[in-house]
Amino acid sequence: MKTIPSQVLEDLKNLAGKNGFRAASPGDVSDARKRYTGNSQHVLRPADTATGAKLIARCSDAGLATIPLGGGTGLVAGHLGLGDRASILFSTERMNRIRQISTQDRNIVAEAGAVLATVQAAAAEQNMLFPLSLAAEGSCTIGGNLATNAGGVQVLRYGNTRDLVLGIEAIMPNGDIMHGLSPLRKNNTGYDIKNLLIGSEGTLGLITAASLKLYPAAQQNATALCPISSPEKALQLLSLLQSELGEFITAFELISGQGLSFLAEHFPQLKQAITPPPPWSVLIEMSGGAKIPLQGLTEEVLGDALVQELILDAIICQSAQQRQQLWDLREHIPLGNAQVGAIVSCDISVPLSALSTFIDRATAKIQALDPALRINCFGHVGDGNLHFNVFPAIGSKRESYRNMGATLRQDIYDLVDQLGGVFSAEHGVGRDKINELQRYGDATRLAVMGCIKKSLDPNNVFNPGAIFPD
Amino acid sequence: MKTIPSQVLEDLKNLAGKNGFRAASPGDVSDARKRYTGNSQHVLRPADTATGAKLIARCSDAGLATIPLGGGTGLVAGHLGLGDRASILFSTERMNRIRQISTQDRNIVAEAGAVLATVQAAAAEQNMLFPLSLAAEGSCTIGGNLATNAGGVQVLRYGNTRDLVLGIEAIMPNGDIMHGLSPLRKNNTGYDIKNLLIGSEGTLGLITAASLKLYPAAQQNATALCPISSPEKALQLLSLLQSELGEFITAFELISGQGLSFLAEHFPQLKQAITPPPPWSVLIEMSGGAKIPLQGLTEEVLGDALVQELILDAIICQSAQQRQQLWDLREHIPLGNAQVGAIVSCDISVPLSALSTFIDRATAKIQALDPALRINCFGHVGDGNLHFNVFPAIGSKRESYRNMGATLRQDIYDLVDQLGGVFSAEHGVGRDKINELQRYGDATRLAVMGCIKKSLDPNNVFNPGAIFPD
Repeated sequence: MKTIPSQVLEDLKNLAGKNGFRAASPGDVSDARKRYTGNSQHVLRPADTATGAKLIARCSDAGLATIPLGGGTGLVAGHLGLGDRASILFSTERMNRIRQISTQDRNIVAEAGAVLATVQAAAAEQNMLFPLSLAAEGSCTIGGNLATNAGGVQVLRYGNTRDLVLGIEAIMPNGDIMHGLSPLRKNNTGYDIKNLLIGSEGTLGLITAASLKLYPAAQQNATALCPISSPEKALQLLSLLQSELGEFITAFELISGQGLSFLAEHFPQLKQAITPPPPWSVLIEMSGGAKIPLQGLTEEVLGDALVQELILDAIICQSAQQRQQLWDLREHIPLGNAQVGAIVSCDISVPLSALSTFIDRATAKIQALDPALRINCFGHVGDGNLHFNVFPAIGSKRESYRNMGATLRQDIYDLVDQLGGVFSAEHGVGRDKINELQRYGDATRLAVMGCIKKSLDPNNVFNPGAIFPD
Repeated sequence: MKTIPSQVLEDLKNLAGKNGFRAASPGDVSDARKRYTGNSQHVLRPADTATGAKLIARCSDAGLATIPLGGGTGLVAGHLGLGDRASILFSTERMNRIRQISTQDRNIVAEAGAVLATVQAAAAEQNMLFPLSLAAEGSCTIGGNLATNAGGVQVLRYGNTRDLVLGIEAIMPNGDIMHGLSPLRKNNTGYDIKNLLIGSEGTLGLITAASLKLYPAAQQNATALCPISSPEKALQLLSLLQSELGEFITAFELISGQGLSFLAEHFPQLKQAITPPPPWSVLIEMSGGAKIPLQGLTEEVLGDALVQELILDAIICQSAQQRQQLWDLREHIPLGNAQVGAIVSCDISVPLSALSTFIDRATAKIQALDPALRINCFGHVGDGNLHFNVFPAIGSKRESYRNMGATLRQDIYDLVDQLGGVFSAEHGVGRDKINELQRYGDATRLAVMGCIKKSLDPNNVFNPGAIFPD
């Protein structure tokens, strides 16, 4: 393991100023799934973009690997320096201001280190909505959300993170600052560098702030949980809802009986909506303005769905408390999974037309390997995005399946690829899925990506080892 | 003027196959505003992507400037080779198939040469909507729409062209084909090359086909024309509509009295909705599913707007015929402008909070130059996108103002820049606005753009002279 030359460290400390430098903590160099440990020993934590740019210029000059660190909630080891190249973390923890909010321009300008929930709250104070919403929202940061183009539970209506970004400010690998914190909705003045940096996981530029879209806050919600006989029915239900009430659908989440059983076991205090847990159900949320007869329309269309046998039943929330109970169940599913301990966790995306086939074939493959394995398949079914996780047989630990993990993973991804899907829907590539990108990615696109990386970061100092093999 | 070596032409003819090569027509090398004439003498017109890739590889090998040609409706001379470097046109006119349409995946795969109206019609046949809609839709092509990231009248609800694209297929400058015609809504597997090519005006890659988003067809519309006392009132009205009925607003177009007067003079057969034309009005369209009481809600909220003095009156359409009359007026405005002949035509974008200030200050500047000049300011006010066009005094021709044009243009763009706006909202840069991009663009962003261009097109063969100075 190489170390950082002491002169470089000294210079960085001086440039960073008071409180601008610290030692890395164990939390900085670990990931949520406890599979990797990063090698970085020091953390840069500038208070502003100008200082950050000076630090980056010095790192770049020294050829020092620089890894951006937000909330550290990423699931693909995008923020962990591995291997034996010395690296330094660039934390946005002190760059966490809300710089501006405008109801007229319907935008908020947040620094990269602002926690997602803080941005949501700042919008809500103005009776506006910042719609990005995901399990880690209490600790993940805007910078990380943009770097990974995060998804979440409201993508169906509002899009992925990139769809919510109007402009960015970023530091390039040479230390230059790109200014672009605009509230403009339309801007056709050259290449879309903003979207190139969003989702590039800190390998091309370090995003320091963003101008984000705001929407009017929902004035009412209609929320329902519907048990269904198969995932295919979920898609038929979605199609019906989209043609009748498409404007209002905010979330459409698939929940499996296995996921609810894990909750019953590990979070018995959570109130189950239906007992025993149905094999499949969908959690639906509609939202809209105060004048829309939303509850009545939802009841009417779900009534039609019942008649058409798309759903087996419909629990339509009659109170905010009941709604919260349903969402608590949905939001605890990843926590239940963590308690059980998955052998593999896949974040896959397939065309809606192939979704049901995927679930059937993947389940069959896994049962052929070992019929006692348990599957929790859930998630953003309206987007074609499933979290497909495989768990040990009852009474076994994941350690017993260590040799099976890689096979399982490749079987699942091969199937996804055959069906026109991809191995990462919303988590990114990071260091965890580099082999998959090389295996399944379009060769021309990979070559183009490589050209761009080389042209913007010729010394490979920005998050080396992420996305591309180091 | 250099010519193309005869051996290169011979090779291209052979590679292009039967019907794959023709002489350029005057229409191929002229622009809609008749300000430029291109120098290309030959047109490549392959029938498929594989043939196109072979042609591009040969052009690239010969260092021959290759300029993509779609419907030729662009307004910034993006498709016209100027200067003395020999160029060849690559027309998508034979690559115009609809390859696939899926109601379940809610996408359509169209080749670059497909005319926008054809794609709209193919969607409508399946009771779906492809929402991109603009004046040139009867002749512009999907390839051109993507290359320029076209806007239009439904951006407020559905976004710009880039927001409607799920995947692309493209030929890179070295002749490699990038395959990516996916219907996936979520795909976080590396850099967003798709969005990099969209809006790059043929300078980085030649888009040959696209997978485009479809929406359920609107089951009903509510359309209204509201005279207003000032553009500021339009924004207040938009804000009210967005909080009450935001889900349904499809179009929100500002119309000036000057534009309607041009129509009264040059298109007297068009029925004016209000006489004499009000100084300002907005055309509003809402659309939604069959179950929504849309007409009643629209009447209610516009009633509120009347009480709040945001609007002076509301003509709410009671028939499809009446709706068509209003849209005929809106869609003829550019034709009226063409009849009169503008001195300058600006396609600008400003923050909504600065829109009213922009109109006031720009009008004052122009009146200070010559109080007899006429201004037609209209367009997609909900997006902050205005078409701000200046016309000669009554009885004068634009030729008399030849010396004033450049000053007017720069005055307007300087003001736009001061207010945080940009000089191109939806038309692009092309060859017409290169100086503006250099003058107003962020220096770091321009440098990044240059790096990318150089890395992907090292011999500068893809549309040289567009976006960047040649």
